[in-house]
Amino acid sequence: MAEFRKARKRGLNRLRWLRRILVEAKRLYYNRLWGMDIHPTAEFSLSAKFDRTFAPGVHVGAYSYVAFDVRILTHDRTRGLYLHTRIGKNCFIGGGSLILPGVEIGDNCVIGAGAVVTRSVPPRCVAAGNPARILRSEIDVGPYGRFADADATESALVERGEA
Amino acid sequence: MAEFRKARKRGLNRLRWLRRILVEAKRLYYNRLWGMDIHPTAEFSLSAKFDRTFAPGVHVGAYSYVAFDVRILTHDRTRGLYLHTRIGKNCFIGGGSLILPGVEIGDNCVIGAGAVVTRSVPPRCVAAGNPARILRSEIDVGPYGRFADADATESALVERGEA
Amino acid sequence: MAEFRKARKRGLNRLRWLRRILVEAKRLYYNRLWGMDIHPTAEFSLSAKFDRTFAPGVHVGAYSYVAFDVRILTHDRTRGLYLHTRIGKNCFIGGGSLILPGVEIGDNCVIGAGAVVTRSVPPRCVAAGNPARILRSEIDVGPYGRFADADATESALVERGEA
Repeated sequence: MAEFRKARKRGLNRLRWLRRILVEAKRLYYNRLWGMDIHPTAEFSLSAKFDRTFAPGVHVGAYSYVAFDVRILTHDRTRGLYLHTRIGKNCFIGGGSLILPGVEIGDNCVIGAGAVVTRSVPPRCVAAGNPARILRSEIDVGPYGRFADADATESALVERGEA
Repeated sequence: MAEFRKARKRGLNRLRWLRRILVEAKRLYYNRLWGMDIHPTAEFSLSAKFDRTFAPGVHVGAYSYVAFDVRILTHDRTRGLYLHTRIGKNCFIGGGSLILPGVEIGDNCVIGAGAVVTRSVPPRCVAAGNPARILRSEIDVGPYGRFADADATESALVERGEA
Repeated sequence: MAEFRKARKRGLNRLRWLRRILVEAKRLYYNRLWGMDIHPTAEFSLSAKFDRTFAPGVHVGAYSYVAFDVRILTHDRTRGLYLHTRIGKNCFIGGGSLILPGVEIGDNCVIGAGAVVTRSVPPRCVAAGNPARILRSEIDVGPYGRFADADATESALVERGEA
């Protein structure tokens, strides 16, 4: 079994270049053909969806990560609104969350999984819930919303064979 | 680039009839084969899902709109319940929301994106959140839950070149 | 029309063995190839997703049911965490809910549709919402989180021709 799993991991690592190509193709498609503003260093899950109804309203900053099933919205049919929705730099947008039209998420923010963000979030905050509330502020995160102590935590887990 | 985008818009407009056919086919499939009650003037995203476990319990009223990824549920396995879930007329059910079994949403309601609606909502209300709460009442919306001032708002945005 | 619906039901019942095979194949794939711990008697929707980034952290107990679109997470990129997430026995995890990394859900629990479970839930509780809160405790459920009175409720509905 252990061999199987190693082989599987090798197989997945080999496929990383494919994922990379697909992400770049999707970014190109969104930015060039639709006029979105997704920074070249921003990363996103292939299941994340950006609102094409008002595509120029989508902004994702440098070194930000948009996780699985996220939806970034820029229009509101019920009010006839077409708004700019902005994700700052160094943000992490948790899986399954919805960013509503007109919301601005400041730099260095972490949005929890499944959050529905209805109001703007200032820089360096953790926000989560539906409606999303600010749970922490003045946080210390770097690229892709990674906390300053994340590397140390991860190394310790790997050393103890727990990751 | 601008030409590309115009061509893309033309292309999409040409494909509208295809979307129309797919929506009508899905409505026919749900109503005739499954016995649901989705009004001929109701609109829905192709990613919205209606509960087939107790299909006759699905009711969507005239001129209502069911947005992307919505789930309308009519059964509860844990309690052995099979209930009628009703969306009134002129409603807008926001993207990604869940309407729980037995809930009745009155006419002229707007349900926010990502809401989980656990209790019935009286007519002319905005409800959102998880669990959904009533945020506004006595609202003034027309077909597809569009606010009375939406057309004016949209025209102003288009005029200023912002939409 | 009634004949159509009966034929449809017969058709679906005939396809049950196919669903069964697909679920077993997915369980095998997750347990053998990825090292997850999904009990042979646990049931899950084919749209449910279990976190493969730290696959050995996924635990689903006997006679538990994981409904449509559920996500069970075991890692947190922002903190460098890889954690064990445990669903107990006789649980029902409602459709569209997210179980966050490190959460432990006790035996005989019911998690409401669309819940985002951020903290552990003791045995015999109903939890729902985002963030999930405990709504009831000391509940009386059996396999697949089914309430003790569910069979009686369902039989009564069927008798009255309402299900």
